[in-house]
Amino acid sequence: MKLDEVTISRAIVSEQSRIMLDYYDLDCAIVGAGPSGLTCAALLGEEGLKVGVIEKKLSVGGGMWGGGMMFPRIVVQEEARRLLDHFDIKYKEYESGYFVSSSVEAVAKITSAACDAGAEFFNLTYVEDVVIKGDNRVSGLVINQTPIQMTGLHIDPLTLATKVTIDATGHDSVVAHLVRDKGGSVDIKGEGFMWADRAESNILSHTKEIFPGLIVTGMAANAVGGERRMGPVFGGMLLSGEKAAKLAKAMLKK
Amino acid sequence: MKLDEVTISRAIVSEQSRIMLDYYDLDCAIVGAGPSGLTCAALLGEEGLKVGVIEKKLSVGGGMWGGGMMFPRIVVQEEARRLLDHFDIKYKEYESGYFVSSSVEAVAKITSAACDAGAEFFNLTYVEDVVIKGDNRVSGLVINQTPIQMTGLHIDPLTLATKVTIDATGHDSVVAHLVRDKGGSVDIKGEGFMWADRAESNILSHTKEIFPGLIVTGMAANAVGGERRMGPVFGGMLLSGEKAAKLAKAMLKK
Amino acid sequence: MKLDEVTISRAIVSEQSRIMLDYYDLDCAIVGAGPSGLTCAALLGEEGLKVGVIEKKLSVGGGMWGGGMMFPRIVVQEEARRLLDHFDIKYKEYESGYFVSSSVEAVAKITSAACDAGAEFFNLTYVEDVVIKGDNRVSGLVINQTPIQMTGLHIDPLTLATKVTIDATGHDSVVAHLVRDKGGSVDIKGEGFMWADRAESNILSHTKEIFPGLIVTGMAANAVGGERRMGPVFGGMLLSGEKAAKLAKAMLKK
Amino acid sequence: MKLDEVTISRAIVSEQSRIMLDYYDLDCAIVGAGPSGLTCAALLGEEGLKVGVIEKKLSVGGGMWGGGMMFPRIVVQEEARRLLDHFDIKYKEYESGYFVSSSVEAVAKITSAACDAGAEFFNLTYVEDVVIKGDNRVSGLVINQTPIQMTGLHIDPLTLATKVTIDATGHDSVVAHLVRDKGGSVDIKGEGFMWADRAESNILSHTKEIFPGLIVTGMAANAVGGERRMGPVFGGMLLSGEKAAKLAKAMLKK
Amino acid sequence: MKLDEVTISRAIVSEQSRIMLDYYDLDCAIVGAGPSGLTCAALLGEEGLKVGVIEKKLSVGGGMWGGGMMFPRIVVQEEARRLLDHFDIKYKEYESGYFVSSSVEAVAKITSAACDAGAEFFNLTYVEDVVIKGDNRVSGLVINQTPIQMTGLHIDPLTLATKVTIDATGHDSVVAHLVRDKGGSVDIKGEGFMWADRAESNILSHTKEIFPGLIVTGMAANAVGGERRMGPVFGGMLLSGEKAAKLAKAMLKK
Amino acid sequence: MKLDEVTISRAIVSEQSRIMLDYYDLDCAIVGAGPSGLTCAALLGEEGLKVGVIEKKLSVGGGMWGGGMMFPRIVVQEEARRLLDHFDIKYKEYESGYFVSSSVEAVAKITSAACDAGAEFFNLTYVEDVVIKGDNRVSGLVINQTPIQMTGLHIDPLTLATKVTIDATGHDSVVAHLVRDKGGSVDIKGEGFMWADRAESNILSHTKEIFPGLIVTGMAANAVGGERRMGPVFGGMLLSGEKAAKLAKAMLKK
Amino acid sequence: MKLDEVTISRAIVSEQSRIMLDYYDLDCAIVGAGPSGLTCAALLGEEGLKVGVIEKKLSVGGGMWGGGMMFPRIVVQEEARRLLDHFDIKYKEYESGYFVSSSVEAVAKITSAACDAGAEFFNLTYVEDVVIKGDNRVSGLVINQTPIQMTGLHIDPLTLATKVTIDATGHDSVVAHLVRDKGGSVDIKGEGFMWADRAESNILSHTKEIFPGLIVTGMAANAVGGERRMGPVFGGMLLSGEKAAKLAKAMLKK
Amino acid sequence: MKLDEVTISRAIVSEQSRIMLDYYDLDCAIVGAGPSGLTCAALLGEEGLKVGVIEKKLSVGGGMWGGGMMFPRIVVQEEARRLLDHFDIKYKEYESGYFVSSSVEAVAKITSAACDAGAEFFNLTYVEDVVIKGDNRVSGLVINQTPIQMTGLHIDPLTLATKVTIDATGHDSVVAHLVRDKGGSVDIKGEGFMWADRAESNILSHTKEIFPGLIVTGMAANAVGGERRMGPVFGGMLLSGEKAAKLAKAMLKK
Repeated sequence: MKLDEVTISRAIVSEQSRIMLDYYDLDCAIVGAGPSGLTCAALLGEEGLKVGVIEKKLSVGGGMWGGGMMFPRIVVQEEARRLLDHFDIKYKEYESGYFVSSSVEAVAKITSAACDAGAEFFNLTYVEDVVIKGDNRVSGLVINQTPIQMTGLHIDPLTLATKVTIDATGHDSVVAHLVRDKGGSVDIKGEGFMWADRAESNILSHTKEIFPGLIVTGMAANAVGGERRMGPVFGGMLLSGEKAAKLAKAMLKK
Repeated sequence: MKLDEVTISRAIVSEQSRIMLDYYDLDCAIVGAGPSGLTCAALLGEEGLKVGVIEKKLSVGGGMWGGGMMFPRIVVQEEARRLLDHFDIKYKEYESGYFVSSSVEAVAKITSAACDAGAEFFNLTYVEDVVIKGDNRVSGLVINQTPIQMTGLHIDPLTLATKVTIDATGHDSVVAHLVRDKGGSVDIKGEGFMWADRAESNILSHTKEIFPGLIVTGMAANAVGGERRMGPVFGGMLLSGEKAAKLAKAMLKK
Repeated sequence: MKLDEVTISRAIVSEQSRIMLDYYDLDCAIVGAGPSGLTCAALLGEEGLKVGVIEKKLSVGGGMWGGGMMFPRIVVQEEARRLLDHFDIKYKEYESGYFVSSSVEAVAKITSAACDAGAEFFNLTYVEDVVIKGDNRVSGLVINQTPIQMTGLHIDPLTLATKVTIDATGHDSVVAHLVRDKGGSVDIKGEGFMWADRAESNILSHTKEIFPGLIVTGMAANAVGGERRMGPVFGGMLLSGEKAAKLAKAMLKK
Repeated sequence: MKLDEVTISRAIVSEQSRIMLDYYDLDCAIVGAGPSGLTCAALLGEEGLKVGVIEKKLSVGGGMWGGGMMFPRIVVQEEARRLLDHFDIKYKEYESGYFVSSSVEAVAKITSAACDAGAEFFNLTYVEDVVIKGDNRVSGLVINQTPIQMTGLHIDPLTLATKVTIDATGHDSVVAHLVRDKGGSVDIKGEGFMWADRAESNILSHTKEIFPGLIVTGMAANAVGGERRMGPVFGGMLLSGEKAAKLAKAMLKK
Repeated sequence: MKLDEVTISRAIVSEQSRIMLDYYDLDCAIVGAGPSGLTCAALLGEEGLKVGVIEKKLSVGGGMWGGGMMFPRIVVQEEARRLLDHFDIKYKEYESGYFVSSSVEAVAKITSAACDAGAEFFNLTYVEDVVIKGDNRVSGLVINQTPIQMTGLHIDPLTLATKVTIDATGHDSVVAHLVRDKGGSVDIKGEGFMWADRAESNILSHTKEIFPGLIVTGMAANAVGGERRMGPVFGGMLLSGEKAAKLAKAMLKK
Repeated sequence: MKLDEVTISRAIVSEQSRIMLDYYDLDCAIVGAGPSGLTCAALLGEEGLKVGVIEKKLSVGGGMWGGGMMFPRIVVQEEARRLLDHFDIKYKEYESGYFVSSSVEAVAKITSAACDAGAEFFNLTYVEDVVIKGDNRVSGLVINQTPIQMTGLHIDPLTLATKVTIDATGHDSVVAHLVRDKGGSVDIKGEGFMWADRAESNILSHTKEIFPGLIVTGMAANAVGGERRMGPVFGGMLLSGEKAAKLAKAMLKK
Repeated sequence: MKLDEVTISRAIVSEQSRIMLDYYDLDCAIVGAGPSGLTCAALLGEEGLKVGVIEKKLSVGGGMWGGGMMFPRIVVQEEARRLLDHFDIKYKEYESGYFVSSSVEAVAKITSAACDAGAEFFNLTYVEDVVIKGDNRVSGLVINQTPIQMTGLHIDPLTLATKVTIDATGHDSVVAHLVRDKGGSVDIKGEGFMWADRAESNILSHTKEIFPGLIVTGMAANAVGGERRMGPVFGGMLLSGEKAAKLAKAMLKK
Repeated sequence: MKLDEVTISRAIVSEQSRIMLDYYDLDCAIVGAGPSGLTCAALLGEEGLKVGVIEKKLSVGGGMWGGGMMFPRIVVQEEARRLLDHFDIKYKEYESGYFVSSSVEAVAKITSAACDAGAEFFNLTYVEDVVIKGDNRVSGLVINQTPIQMTGLHIDPLTLATKVTIDATGHDSVVAHLVRDKGGSVDIKGEGFMWADRAESNILSHTKEIFPGLIVTGMAANAVGGERRMGPVFGGMLLSGEKAAKLAKAMLKK
């Protein structure tokens, strides 16, 4: 068959603009495609919800690609092993209760699951503001393309509507900061010294709705909650994403 | 259970150094983890060969993440549809013979397949030289960590041995250039004007062994062969990766 | 009336994607929105042709905004005064035959005329390759967003079809270089020493079709033709744009 | 006729220095050439006042060129449609009350109107201080060339006198900040979350004289007044510029 | 004999990973390899303790290489002359009590002594956090590779355990700041005006345990203690390193 | 007396634009205000000629300020001592025939002499092209402001006419390169190894008219002539400037 | 005569190190070689005092070179005309009481005067700290080479002793800030809005000893005193330098 | 005893200028302080010759600090083990004939040996040219401070005389390039593919006098000689330094 360059271009523009017009009104917007955001997207999608993932970089996966200090391995503890199994990620036991996986495989498998569950990805996109109106609730995200930010161009953003927003942006907890810095009543405590054991135990209690319509998960949850750092042990990340998905589902059912 | 930070660190160092000591002697080294390199890695791994993928960035996927002009969609033509099916990538027909997929899903699914097939990934790693001895054949790769290159530090590299090397580094065709620039008899013609149809037809004939022990695939094959550009149509990339895998397997059987 | 953010966003996406799907098949693509490109766009549009202007910067106007050495005034000689009148640009006579105008007004007025004539602008867009197939003629442009180039991201481009291409990219003569550097038979002589009088006289003879389907105009015409530099005298720019429009119209009539 | 390079240079120097000597004593100085500043300049000029527009960039138009997220379209609501008509800008209705225009045309047409009304533009010029003397009123602007600022050179500025100053510098509200940071009693509240409807309604009440001799308009008005963000809906910008012009005219009549 | 590249690479990986697995559990971690850190490492190693030195740069020696204002000479006063003798550094008397040495020799000789005493060096490594658990004591260091920091990549760190930590990071007193900034009760007074005589006299009293498990030495001690600056007189640096070694040894004996 | 800011600004604009209109038609344009250019300007001015000095930096003096390796002293040999005396520069004899002066004083004194002789300085100005017409002679310089070049803005230059041009731009020999690179028959040999004695002897023979209307002096003369380097001995620079002045005077008399 | 490169180098090293050993014990250290610092240096030197001028740039002259907005002219008012005469700087009257001079000539002439008066210049040198001992008085300056600061190298400084220090570092008032930031009782009010008349009247009252041993002059005096800005009128600068010289002389006589 | 800051500064200036005046006339100048340069300096110094080592960085050691790919270990083969013993560097046998040492210890010990042998180090110094006079022999080096180069300042260099020069600047072979690029008859072949065994065997034959007065050693020898790369095996480096020392000694005896 003959290939036509303009038809290829039109296929891409047509399909993506269709998705933009459709997905600019979401059940759940997940900001940040690191381990907790991806886990949350996969599990919410599996529930049949309309999920969009907004990632500022070109690639998804966040801080998981690099493992620890550029050794591309991650460690997961016993409690989260079932999520490795859920996403079909291979692992090897180092010592009792310490499972080592390939960081590359972990990213690829959870992302595949999210895609299979129908989540849409908006990569090279960042959130520069939130929509909060008279009901004092996060009801939309103000987005723009990352290269615009990188090049310092001043160009107006677009907006998408969302019923629930999940801040999975890691240490920076970008959405939580946007809400707080413009006057929303959000308390961001900042991350403490490293204490992996304690941080892994407490991350689930920090994974919660911190402002009407806004849930924090993963390192963003710990950073907002003032919890300790964890390092390259990722079980808590996955479990936090799972909890965020449950909370979002419950909020959407109301 | 209690988590210990030092045990986590040791688990990572121990496991990764074990892999480095093991995988520094490969059946096949694939340089570049874009669409053709990933496809090749998955298919060679499925044949039971010992495969290492060297990727200079932190994340794999290469130029596929961005789709066309930041619209994250790729187009695949009829001939390559069976590879989308092989890797379980969803698609939608735009016009007869033009299939549109999510670029994010495509990366995640082929990478997952490569991991399942046992390929090992060395990310944040670049090739700065090749080993060619008296037999005038590429028999090893001289590698270093990308941040060293980015920061301009002068630090000696390490070396891994490989029976077959596949240059899947895209337009730059890095390995082919290294061989040529130091005197290996390699002719690099450079890429021509865009002509998607012709480029897709001819890419398979450019996918070949261009120097003893060195196969080129994907955009590197077209760049070396002087073929036309393609744009965001990816069927040829996947088919080229498939052919490179077949060639490598044949060479290893000799 | 109530304003809804998502409706505003959808209005923009919907309208612009409609234009992209429509204007990716042009009568005439003008690359570069400096004085000659804008003049050409206005005059071709007034003939009822489907014209697209591709400008790598956010704003149009090119080198005309700055006048001479940041004094925002331009000089136009007698021969081109009728084009100032055509575009309704005010001027003042300095000495006999030397007319001084505001550089800001000149940009605004010619751009307004181009818009009124139905030309569409694709700003923040650059041409990274051309489509040349078996008929050895420029039949399409391979475009991408400028911030992608500025940030060094590797993302595939899109393609638009065009019957005639006009290179109005100034000293760089970008399209002419793309054609030459990949083997098209184009001879680029480079600009000579400044000699305003001679350059203004000869620019019209350099404004011509230099490769099947490709016309050069403005400083690009002089750079390709090996003509002398002009400095901040703009009459020749406007007259060259006018001639390019006439040539394009003639080619389209064939 | 023969062109002489030195005469061309002298024409430019002579004409621009004449304008500098003349326009360094203004009725109204408008700082920032975005949509509200340009509108204000056009309408004040139409009243016969001596207006100067100071723009830090080479080109005028500010954030309007890029439309929303690089889709070069702007939306204007019903209330401001008459200003589109006033400036002869074409539009298309998307839904009832939402009018979409080309962002490029919008800039070109309002700028043309300002030029026709006699406003003078000082581009590549920024305001680094204000003159406030014993009468505690902004009576002059301390200006310098932008490339000096960009290159970090320490070179003394010049000063122009003005009866009224209009801060149309967008979110940065540069003049308001200069006044406040050196002790002038100006309260700058900062911009709130996005809420387009509310922001568009309230912008006119924020457009006012905030310090003797200093009016704020456009996004600068909203930023100073603590109003919500708007996004790529530009009706309020135009209406705010219109109101600023009326206020300035009233102040000058006193 | 024949040399094999892969064997060379495996020798390096094998030996260094063995050291990492072994030395990630230290008696004493010294952060910073300037004059006081090196002195401390040498003297503690001579006591048979397991010492690791963490240096963010590729080379050790810190600020001592440059002498004063790029004249590579250092001055040492009478009180510290015995340490020059201990490390076999040559010197010349300038005036009574002022001894001048080569700064290059001083670095080389103290480093040699530290190596002979069994200290291990982790260069190109920086401390990004500390481990503090329920006993409120510095019990580990969170480390990463410097090129990761320099390139802004977000990659998880590793952790090593240590019984005693010595902050020898100079004016920045990095570890003390990390402890303080996350809420540890550490008071950092900052360095005062230069007064060499007083600073040299008091540095020993500032060399102490400032938080459970954390000793400061050298310029870090003076910066934390609010002492005066010294300039290129290095006797106090060496004596402070000696005292830190004594304190650490005492703490480890408990 | 009362000072008025606008009057101060107008005094500066008025006076400098008067000079620009006057001095854009020169007897002699000297490009580069290092030691040879300054000497030449002073001596030509003393002859009553209309001299303009174009210097790309903000300050004049070129490479003389720094002396040798940041020791701000210069050495002058016996033959040039009379020029030190002519400009009233103090010196001290180091060994027989070697005179040492302050580099700061040398710059200040020769510049003062040039000012007293009526030379005008255009600082922060660079030459980006030359005017060469049918008589194949350098008859004008195309100039622009340095900050424009530094910031990469594309803004048209202005032009000044000159009867004689002197290239005193040091190793770069900027004007000579401009002439050669666009096809003027100028042979630039490049500087040789250091050999102070020979270079000082031969510099005068390299100081000559190398193209109709263009003289080279100082390091530019040696670079064009293929002479050896000199280092921080400045006698030859001063003598070369003196010779260039004599040549220019002779040419102007013709 | 024969020139020997090594003798030239030794002449420079020998002479400059002699000056460093001699001038590291000064009557008066002037920091900053702008108009007020240079004036002060010239006048103090004329009194026979041992004066050193420390300038962070390669060239002296500070902000005076650029005149106003790159028009290299300065304005001086009636009161300071006698200092123009003192330094033999030519001027032209623009309006009654407003004298315009060349900024280049002004720098060259005052610097020449300072050299003639025996002041020594340490260029490319910056002050990074001060010496304050038990008598709570500035008794020395801690200096380093500027390129060290520019390149971020950490190299120890040297120290010179001085009886009186004059801060002539302009708006930054570097020495005053160093004293204040480490706890010296100095109040720095910061510069106010532009009001040339008032600033010129009051600068003399702000020129005073603000801490034992430390005088401020020029823009540093106004910045510390909270005075208004002046712009490119330089009479006050010269008069302030004159007053600082008188104050220093009086202090040294005590 | 009391310490005086100015005495400390004078001690440094006095001692270092004494060394500069003395060592600017050398028996042997070694450019580059990596493994072969340091070895050569130590061994030549042990012969009682007057040796200066010029190193462009602040620290010596070159590429040896980093070991292989940031694992700070080096490998040395059997033939060079006696040099490890000579410099008292500890090692461990990995496999038969492969000895692993700490890269930090290796640098420190060889440098210590060079210092003990009386070599002087000029660090932060680079060679920008060579002196070659009528005898067509390298008889001096033109040096400058590295921060001057890094900051792009144009400041004249100084010169030192040397009987023999050794280029130990690694892959860049800086001195060899300087000689060749200005016309000296030096053939630089460039480095080949990695082949450790062959490179280690042949490095000694490439270590030789390549131009009158100029010896190459270490990687510079291999780069000039067109030899293969080696990677982090350092035996050849040490042996090459040893041979260069022998050659230099022989040349000096003539």
